[in-house]
Amino acid sequence: VADATPEDARQIEEGRGLDRVIAFSDGVFAIAITLLVLNFKLPDLSGPDLDDELFHAISDDWGLWFSFALSFAIIARFWVAHHRLSMLLRRIDHHFLVLNLVLLAFIVVLPYPTEILGEYGNPTAVAVYATAMTLTGLASGVLWSYALRAGLMDSRVDDRWAKHSVLRGFMIPIFFGVSIPLAFVSTTLAEVLWAGLFFQHFYFTRRFGSILQPYRDQPPPTKG
Amino acid sequence: VADATPEDARQIEEGRGLDRVIAFSDGVFAIAITLLVLNFKLPDLSGPDLDDELFHAISDDWGLWFSFALSFAIIARFWVAHHRLSMLLRRIDHHFLVLNLVLLAFIVVLPYPTEILGEYGNPTAVAVYATAMTLTGLASGVLWSYALRAGLMDSRVDDRWAKHSVLRGFMIPIFFGVSIPLAFVSTTLAEVLWAGLFFQHFYFTRRFGSILQPYRDQPPPTKG
Amino acid sequence: VADATPEDARQIEEGRGLDRVIAFSDGVFAIAITLLVLNFKLPDLSGPDLDDELFHAISDDWGLWFSFALSFAIIARFWVAHHRLSMLLRRIDHHFLVLNLVLLAFIVVLPYPTEILGEYGNPTAVAVYATAMTLTGLASGVLWSYALRAGLMDSRVDDRWAKHSVLRGFMIPIFFGVSIPLAFVSTTLAEVLWAGLFFQHFYFTRRFGSILQPYRDQPPPTKG
Amino acid sequence: VADATPEDARQIEEGRGLDRVIAFSDGVFAIAITLLVLNFKLPDLSGPDLDDELFHAISDDWGLWFSFALSFAIIARFWVAHHRLSMLLRRIDHHFLVLNLVLLAFIVVLPYPTEILGEYGNPTAVAVYATAMTLTGLASGVLWSYALRAGLMDSRVDDRWAKHSVLRGFMIPIFFGVSIPLAFVSTTLAEVLWAGLFFQHFYFTRRFGSILQPYRDQPPPTKG
Repeated sequence: VADATPEDARQIEEGRGLDRVIAFSDGVFAIAITLLVLNFKLPDLSGPDLDDELFHAISDDWGLWFSFALSFAIIARFWVAHHRLSMLLRRIDHHFLVLNLVLLAFIVVLPYPTEILGEYGNPTAVAVYATAMTLTGLASGVLWSYALRAGLMDSRVDDRWAKHSVLRGFMIPIFFGVSIPLAFVSTTLAEVLWAGLFFQHFYFTRRFGSILQPYRDQPPPTKG
Repeated sequence: VADATPEDARQIEEGRGLDRVIAFSDGVFAIAITLLVLNFKLPDLSGPDLDDELFHAISDDWGLWFSFALSFAIIARFWVAHHRLSMLLRRIDHHFLVLNLVLLAFIVVLPYPTEILGEYGNPTAVAVYATAMTLTGLASGVLWSYALRAGLMDSRVDDRWAKHSVLRGFMIPIFFGVSIPLAFVSTTLAEVLWAGLFFQHFYFTRRFGSILQPYRDQPPPTKG
Repeated sequence: VADATPEDARQIEEGRGLDRVIAFSDGVFAIAITLLVLNFKLPDLSGPDLDDELFHAISDDWGLWFSFALSFAIIARFWVAHHRLSMLLRRIDHHFLVLNLVLLAFIVVLPYPTEILGEYGNPTAVAVYATAMTLTGLASGVLWSYALRAGLMDSRVDDRWAKHSVLRGFMIPIFFGVSIPLAFVSTTLAEVLWAGLFFQHFYFTRRFGSILQPYRDQPPPTKG
Repeated sequence: VADATPEDARQIEEGRGLDRVIAFSDGVFAIAITLLVLNFKLPDLSGPDLDDELFHAISDDWGLWFSFALSFAIIARFWVAHHRLSMLLRRIDHHFLVLNLVLLAFIVVLPYPTEILGEYGNPTAVAVYATAMTLTGLASGVLWSYALRAGLMDSRVDDRWAKHSVLRGFMIPIFFGVSIPLAFVSTTLAEVLWAGLFFQHFYFTRRFGSILQPYRDQPPPTKG
């Protein structure tokens, strides 16, 4: 099913074919991020003070709300990265197609660890969630690296920008990866490390902001 | 995860990049509005007069039907507003991308308060529903305001039209916001206020109908 | 929420705006038709001869398979009609947008009556299903009629072809509408009438086949 | 509902119409592949050692993970084949539209046999899964064969390449079809045969790799 021979790699797609692959990927991202809402299960209440019970049932769900918000933000972050990559691509080959499908397989799974984290929140749940995010982050990083190495990007893309972006992308699997063993020490510590992802982002953006422009010299092409 | 530094704001997208962001947003709207059907749970019946029981089980579900119709209409209304905004945009920056994702996060959640309203319909349920709609309306209004303030729209867009549209959009969070405390006085009163949204629309359209044309002078561009 | 004033009707959309409205509609059709699979609920078995029980649990589900196949075919039929209409449109106004959203609201609901029919199959279930299909068919017919009457279609579309198509479209609500009272006489009779929809199609196609070409004189535009 | 008269077959679609049919199909593929995640049901635990129980509940789910990965890979494979076919099409007729909808109906169903396989994994489950894949593979093969026979593909497509692709596509229903009776002898044997699909792919790609280029002589059209 997975095709990985040298001959296949020659099957280049550009223009309309490339656009369709990205549209399919965007669709999978959009569906996975929307399915997160299915993790909220309506409480089945029937007591004397229904109003009060409902209020507590919803507000006690803060674990579910936290995991929803976190996963929405992270999947959105993966989508933004995928979107930026796709805007710089000029062609794709068969290996890229397969690596892209591997990334989508991890994206599709994410609502499940999100539910586990939201419902239980114990060390195992935190470790399972962190593992899922680590693997998804690795798949995303491998996709970027391959696109760069195989010369699939627009020739005007600045090499330093591209390498910087790939390295920055690997921050996600690094932070989540380190948090996996930490979860069994303290789930709070693991979640504090996740918050560190926000701060490293601001730090690196402040420090290396000057190379955020993907294109060398020329203005970006406006119509792809 | 959320990126909000001045440097990022320079990452402008036009043409194909803009189209993809809007297509992704349309996808999320389409999925969220379709997932509303999952709120209808098939009754598990097995009595002697199954036919009669089924009829009553379905017709007693009027709360679910009401909440489905209401949420479908409101999400459709948010989508129409988003669609109109997107048709006037000529470029987006990183802040717009983040604000757009925040709006989508609220849209994605809406099937859950819809289910709560349809299943319970008590003060808490009405207040939760109104809160969700208020926050979504605010997110939509902030997105429009930002697009206007940051100069992302077509330069031919009439300023008076744009400001009028933004103000009209804030009617949704205002009406729903006021209904939150009202719900604890009377759920009927809160729902009557929601119906007021329809009437204010007709009133304002009749009164200010003459500036409904978004473009100054020139005819609208037909091919974007 | 629903906007229906004369002033609004002037908000014409063409080109990119029209394409986006159709793409959103296609998305809703695609999601609704795919959600039909969620009607299949895995039986929860744990007996001594699990293999035999599973076989019977799946094969006894023929009601669900029948309702799945029927609804897939009918939603697909509605989508084909919507697709053909959209290919002939040259512009849409606000009324069309609202009527289109009303059609989508009915399409979104269809998985629920499908589940009711598949699970119960008694007179009430058959009548509920037929009612849902009647209303959806009417919404589709009203949309076609409006597009024709408001002059939204390509000027080269043959008037006779368009009127013929609208009338043919109303066959669905007519057949399903008549079957609603029939269901309480005999569910088999109602379902035989549904099968009549196939045969009327072949009859009318054979009889009026010669005006199936939507365009007068000229060959159809190949690039819209 | 299904239209199959000779007159209909004349309804040719090209350009924008063709693109929309493919986009609708891509949407159905994307939704079906994403719905696979719904097969993971959160275990309802509440014991003294929740952490340990959760770990075992998730890791004992290996049947579900196996069926998820397998179905994701196979649906992705069907999508890649459909994507490649669509890139070579220059026009479609009504018969193609109907055959395409039949394929989509099978794709839509696939999450259900995936759940059956993942939950039970006994001979009946394996046979049901293999039957679903056989039928889907046949529908895909019939679609390719029809497109080839009806001359819907780009005239520059190499005939030998097209026939080779159709034959290679039929490997899926052949391997899964043979595994149906095998499942009742040994489920392991049936699953080993499925693994054979990977190996036949590498064998044939190595042996016939030289005709993987769909276009004769000319370079492929880059903008469709």
